[in-house]
Amino acid sequence: MNVTLSATLAANEDIDRRRRAGERVIHLAFGEAGLPVHPALRRRLIAASERNGYGPVAGAPDLRVAAAGYWERRGLATDPDLVICGPGSKPLLYGLQLAIGGDIVLPMPSWVSYAAQADLAGARSLLVPTPPGEGGAPDPDLVRSAVLHARGQGREVSSLLVTLPDNPTGTLARPQTIRRLVELARELDLVIISDEIYRDLVHDPAADYLSPADIAPERTVITTGLSKSLALGGWRIGVARLPDAGYALRERMLAVASEIWSSPAAPVQQAAAYAFTEPDELVERVADSRSLHGAVLRAVWSRFAEAGAKVAEPQGGFYCYPDLTHLRDRLGVSTVQDFCALLLDRHGIGVLPGHAFGDDPGALRVRVATSLLYGETTEQRLAALRSPDPVSLPWIAAALDHLSEGLRDLSTAPRQQASRARVLVPAAAAAS
Amino acid sequence: MNVTLSATLAANEDIDRRRRAGERVIHLAFGEAGLPVHPALRRRLIAASERNGYGPVAGAPDLRVAAAGYWERRGLATDPDLVICGPGSKPLLYGLQLAIGGDIVLPMPSWVSYAAQADLAGARSLLVPTPPGEGGAPDPDLVRSAVLHARGQGREVSSLLVTLPDNPTGTLARPQTIRRLVELARELDLVIISDEIYRDLVHDPAADYLSPADIAPERTVITTGLSKSLALGGWRIGVARLPDAGYALRERMLAVASEIWSSPAAPVQQAAAYAFTEPDELVERVADSRSLHGAVLRAVWSRFAEAGAKVAEPQGGFYCYPDLTHLRDRLGVSTVQDFCALLLDRHGIGVLPGHAFGDDPGALRVRVATSLLYGETTEQRLAALRSPDPVSLPWIAAALDHLSEGLRDLSTAPRQQASRARVLVPAAAAAS
Repeated sequence: MNVTLSATLAANEDIDRRRRAGERVIHLAFGEAGLPVHPALRRRLIAASERNGYGPVAGAPDLRVAAAGYWERRGLATDPDLVICGPGSKPLLYGLQLAIGGDIVLPMPSWVSYAAQADLAGARSLLVPTPPGEGGAPDPDLVRSAVLHARGQGREVSSLLVTLPDNPTGTLARPQTIRRLVELARELDLVIISDEIYRDLVHDPAADYLSPADIAPERTVITTGLSKSLALGGWRIGVARLPDAGYALRERMLAVASEIWSSPAAPVQQAAAYAFTEPDELVERVADSRSLHGAVLRAVWSRFAEAGAKVAEPQGGFYCYPDLTHLRDRLGVSTVQDFCALLLDRHGIGVLPGHAFGDDPGALRVRVATSLLYGETTEQRLAALRSPDPVSLPWIAAALDHLSEGLRDLSTAPRQQASRARVLVPAAAAAS
Repeated sequence: MNVTLSATLAANEDIDRRRRAGERVIHLAFGEAGLPVHPALRRRLIAASERNGYGPVAGAPDLRVAAAGYWERRGLATDPDLVICGPGSKPLLYGLQLAIGGDIVLPMPSWVSYAAQADLAGARSLLVPTPPGEGGAPDPDLVRSAVLHARGQGREVSSLLVTLPDNPTGTLARPQTIRRLVELARELDLVIISDEIYRDLVHDPAADYLSPADIAPERTVITTGLSKSLALGGWRIGVARLPDAGYALRERMLAVASEIWSSPAAPVQQAAAYAFTEPDELVERVADSRSLHGAVLRAVWSRFAEAGAKVAEPQGGFYCYPDLTHLRDRLGVSTVQDFCALLLDRHGIGVLPGHAFGDDPGALRVRVATSLLYGETTEQRLAALRSPDPVSLPWIAAALDHLSEGLRDLSTAPRQQASRARVLVPAAAAAS
């Protein structure tokens, strides 16, 4: 298998290094929520600081009951015995690939780690383009032939993944697309993995959200966590809701979990148990975060649109995915890695190349994350969270101006022959 | 690959169920340290409860510096850049198998998860018996032929693992054995993984401890954690010290870590950073724990020896590994799983079958963990920790009496034809 340092990691280290060295760089490359932890969650962690036993591999019973309640409030009756907790949704997604086995259908583009995890699990990913204007779901028109072709070559294809709403595009697949994917999953006997970690950050709470679990609870696994909605990335907590009657998958997941990670940190589990009961103070925090993410993301999105990028209007989370391929000839770059290097070197704009998300390296599509614009300090971030107009806060306005200026310079740059072939994503370090 | 629910997990769930149902069962099956968290560590966790960012995949810089200092005080100059932290040493050990690649030589018996992890990583383990009277190291006389045979069959064999001191036997491989294994590792070009999580619990601090890293720093990875010495199993924190100049392995480990677990929980990292500086208050706590583990373990060991078991005197940690095969005909059991079921059903003694550690299922060898005898409450456990003679505390003495009685009944039981074939370890749930 290939073991490759992730593009995210390398690019972010590069940006951090430049910022420490005093370069004027806006950091639009990292998917951290960029907000402080709510005091109520700190209090729960502190109150549970005497908990040092291993505890159940599936997670503490009160956490599993709370997570079941979270899903019940979203219309999904949930057996707490079919909830499994992990130190982040990332290990749960990896564990699911191991426990389900076989190859996996992924949307293209999709989050960097899905395909990398398939690789580590000894499986292969079938990258299927998303439908026009939608992200996070493979195009139903293309899934059947991709699966049948792979099966015809003797490959076992067992699962299909959707991200609702999506990373990297920030868009939300339409209910109609989800319905067609569910039909296909039934026809082709695929488990559906629905990564819903950004669900509570859909900007319009009245938006039409359909989880595959709503219509195919017998074959859908949902994963989520508190890294995005409550900014607990560094606390490492995620939960998975297994399919109805998915006891065999539960046993395999517990086997995997007990050999790889055991359980999330016990004090963190108690804070998460509180969070998943959704008390008013945290519902309010999530609502404030959702508004902030939406406002800043729309501002960034409109800057790209004004600069001539093709970019779908984001509906959730804190990412958008502009396409600047029309500048390729003008800039004299042939790959998106070169384009990202140029954006960073000449214009102080740090983003991730779409290629890292499985996209065509010749297309100048980049993932733009906006959540590190909220401030450098807790005070700035809290001010952003409380502001009715965060985009007008001086530090956010300055970053947006920097972005507009960079994009304008880019569009009006004199025609180039060829840029230096500086590659932001390091070459693969091959291991057996 | 096979995905099998671990024997530890299933057996422990069975024992817990019986205890909750009011059965009189002594729990000698679980490798939890059985002691409270030190208040100083709780204070550090609490002080770091505002830390919610993802942080570096390798771990927080102050934690890596502290871990380097820990090893320097043990004679190993350590570059903090070659320290990688994980949520437990378990994920680090799994990540090492993925990052190194190829098959792995394991001592037989050895900790349940090593072979299971190889299986999940798509590798195979070469189980090589330990030398007579020693545990935790494959017999040097047998390693070369095992490796050459496997290589002759086209298998890639890349690493060799030792556990110092050992789980399940509680013994410490002799320096002479380690020296011979290092020679072999050089000859056969194997990376040595040295699991030293019980190192600070060697009962006699003057014991002759040789880590392979002392003599082969160029090819040895050490893993350790705070689950055993400071009873932080539920906090999930481990650290790995990579070989000198092991920067390529570091990059592969970071790639694996960033795709599977990201990092340990940020507040826990800060508590661990304090722990690895080894302040007096924690050195004292580890010393008290070591004494307690040693005293209770020796008492349990002597009960087994008195009952006629063949059992090496343990030198560290809280396990011993008695062999009661001489009772097989008398008891009418043919496998160690049946023997464990009989011990639990008829005598209220819960232990793990040696088979789970890779041992011969026909040999009645069992792993006995003694650390859950210290008490049911924090008060009892602290009393045990502070007692100059913990074995005389009423609750520990009662458990030892229960054990002696059970072992006596076992040895004097009337001859049986055949026991019920009740299997404690569930059958494998196969996945692709």
